[in-house]
Amino acid sequence: MSILSLDRAHESVEKDLSSVDRLIFDTLSEHDKSIEVIGNYVISAGGKRIRPLLNMVFAQVFCYKGDSHIKIGAAIEFFHTATLLHDDVIDESNIRRGKEAAHKKWTNKYAILVGDFLFSQAFRLMIATRSIEVLNILSKAAAIISEGEVKQLNNLRNIELDQSEYIDVIQSKTAELFAVACETAAVISDQNKDMQQAAYGFGINLGISFQIMDDILDYTSENLGKELGKDYEEGKVTLPIILLNKVCDIGEKEFIKRLFKDDEKNEGDFQLLVKCIEKYDIFNESKKVAFLYSNKAEEIFNKHFITLDKQEILRSILSYQINRVS
Amino acid sequence: MSILSLDRAHESVEKDLSSVDRLIFDTLSEHDKSIEVIGNYVISAGGKRIRPLLNMVFAQVFCYKGDSHIKIGAAIEFFHTATLLHDDVIDESNIRRGKEAAHKKWTNKYAILVGDFLFSQAFRLMIATRSIEVLNILSKAAAIISEGEVKQLNNLRNIELDQSEYIDVIQSKTAELFAVACETAAVISDQNKDMQQAAYGFGINLGISFQIMDDILDYTSENLGKELGKDYEEGKVTLPIILLNKVCDIGEKEFIKRLFKDDEKNEGDFQLLVKCIEKYDIFNESKKVAFLYSNKAEEIFNKHFITLDKQEILRSILSYQINRVS
Repeated sequence: MSILSLDRAHESVEKDLSSVDRLIFDTLSEHDKSIEVIGNYVISAGGKRIRPLLNMVFAQVFCYKGDSHIKIGAAIEFFHTATLLHDDVIDESNIRRGKEAAHKKWTNKYAILVGDFLFSQAFRLMIATRSIEVLNILSKAAAIISEGEVKQLNNLRNIELDQSEYIDVIQSKTAELFAVACETAAVISDQNKDMQQAAYGFGINLGISFQIMDDILDYTSENLGKELGKDYEEGKVTLPIILLNKVCDIGEKEFIKRLFKDDEKNEGDFQLLVKCIEKYDIFNESKKVAFLYSNKAEEIFNKHFITLDKQEILRSILSYQINRVS
Repeated sequence: MSILSLDRAHESVEKDLSSVDRLIFDTLSEHDKSIEVIGNYVISAGGKRIRPLLNMVFAQVFCYKGDSHIKIGAAIEFFHTATLLHDDVIDESNIRRGKEAAHKKWTNKYAILVGDFLFSQAFRLMIATRSIEVLNILSKAAAIISEGEVKQLNNLRNIELDQSEYIDVIQSKTAELFAVACETAAVISDQNKDMQQAAYGFGINLGISFQIMDDILDYTSENLGKELGKDYEEGKVTLPIILLNKVCDIGEKEFIKRLFKDDEKNEGDFQLLVKCIEKYDIFNESKKVAFLYSNKAEEIFNKHFITLDKQEILRSILSYQINRVS
């Protein structure tokens, strides 16, 4: 079993994920050509499909027999794609999933409106489950996520941001969707409240760990299908900057202030910043925080899921993330 | 009874509309300060609240006794406000409801994200009705409306647009929300399918008539709380232009092509265009089309609603619109 990829999990729910994709592309094909083209472009660009994957895997681990997980999976992917379309307009990103961002290719107007359409389709699919409980969970999550995006916007260039505020933002904007992908699988599988909460907790901690790792990779990797240093360019203060700011000297603090608060950036500053982060071993310090959260997810796993049949599929997702942050 | 305003209808459901406003502002106050401030700014700027009004009035005409209409009314107003926020970003409008547009005051980023938040809250409130039927109707409407917005974008600068395509767009982007405001009131009041369809048909025709009149006023009135000539500036081809293009001479056709298709506008062109529209009496011709649709709404009214207690409140809304287009 590889712990370096999500292949094990993808394979185990391959059929379900194909059904999700079919539902997504069938839904898009029923509408205006530009919706279909733009929707297909963004969604077929791939991504790990980790959110629907969590829903499918939990449904399998809980021996779910119906087809609501297909609708929820497609709804979650639609919702996630809608937020990506809007995020890229807001962040003025050029690249998404290794391709030219939709708003660059078709204008901001199309990105905003097709995003709105995908939101509405996400809700259509959620409603198709006919479960008020599922609807409550997912619509509450939608509100938390968009509020998280607003909070993130409020915190642009805020170098006073502390770790707990940062965690609060990424919990809302990223981890909540991970969490409800897990929780709704427990709900449709008629698991008890304890198990539903455990699934939610597993997803929240996994999601926080996941986002911290993405925020680290924004400084270290060019292979994310995104641009390197996007957060830096936007003035988005993430964990590496928060931790660096706590330990660096006065001159370095001034440097951070100039880059983020004052938004005065010169050529070569990004490389200098990365060197400064490395000097204080901050990437590893950040990974430790990410590890803390994947560790919490593991504790929940060990307490609630380890005795279940097929737990090893779920375990493989956890191992993937633990491996990323180790 | 004045047929020049919606006062009669507003008065009859005053208490319900206050409850809707309270629910809206209470919901906003529970969230991030910037959501509350921007949401309050846009929603308290007023507008006629005609969409929730239709829902309240129909609920009263159908003697509805519960409180779902309050939730639906607030959901519809949230949804409508979200589309206004996004529309103003897309259309680059400076003014909305007589005030500086939100995206001008707080940036496009906030307008997009607060719009997304209001979408999610709209769905939260719809779900609070716990009626899958209501949810199906409203979420389908949300998809139709956003698809209508995309179609409108596709048709920018398209001077080949014909009347039926134009009606198709305004039916989706505007009239659908009028229609489901009426239909859902019939649903929660346990009216039969015939009555539900009649309510929907009344709303669709009223909404089409309403939007045609707004499109006429874009050329003739500065008192809408919007800018005069916005459609003209954006290259949005509306009924007056479609009708003018059918009857004007070759030189005038070239003029329209230059303004809309080629987007080459000089000072004084707008006034020239208005004169040309007046020369062929196109404002009245456009009003005749609007009248056709308010007439269809009246036929439905006479067939289905005229014998109901309190039908006169509903009649006053219809009279308001008939008066606008007469």
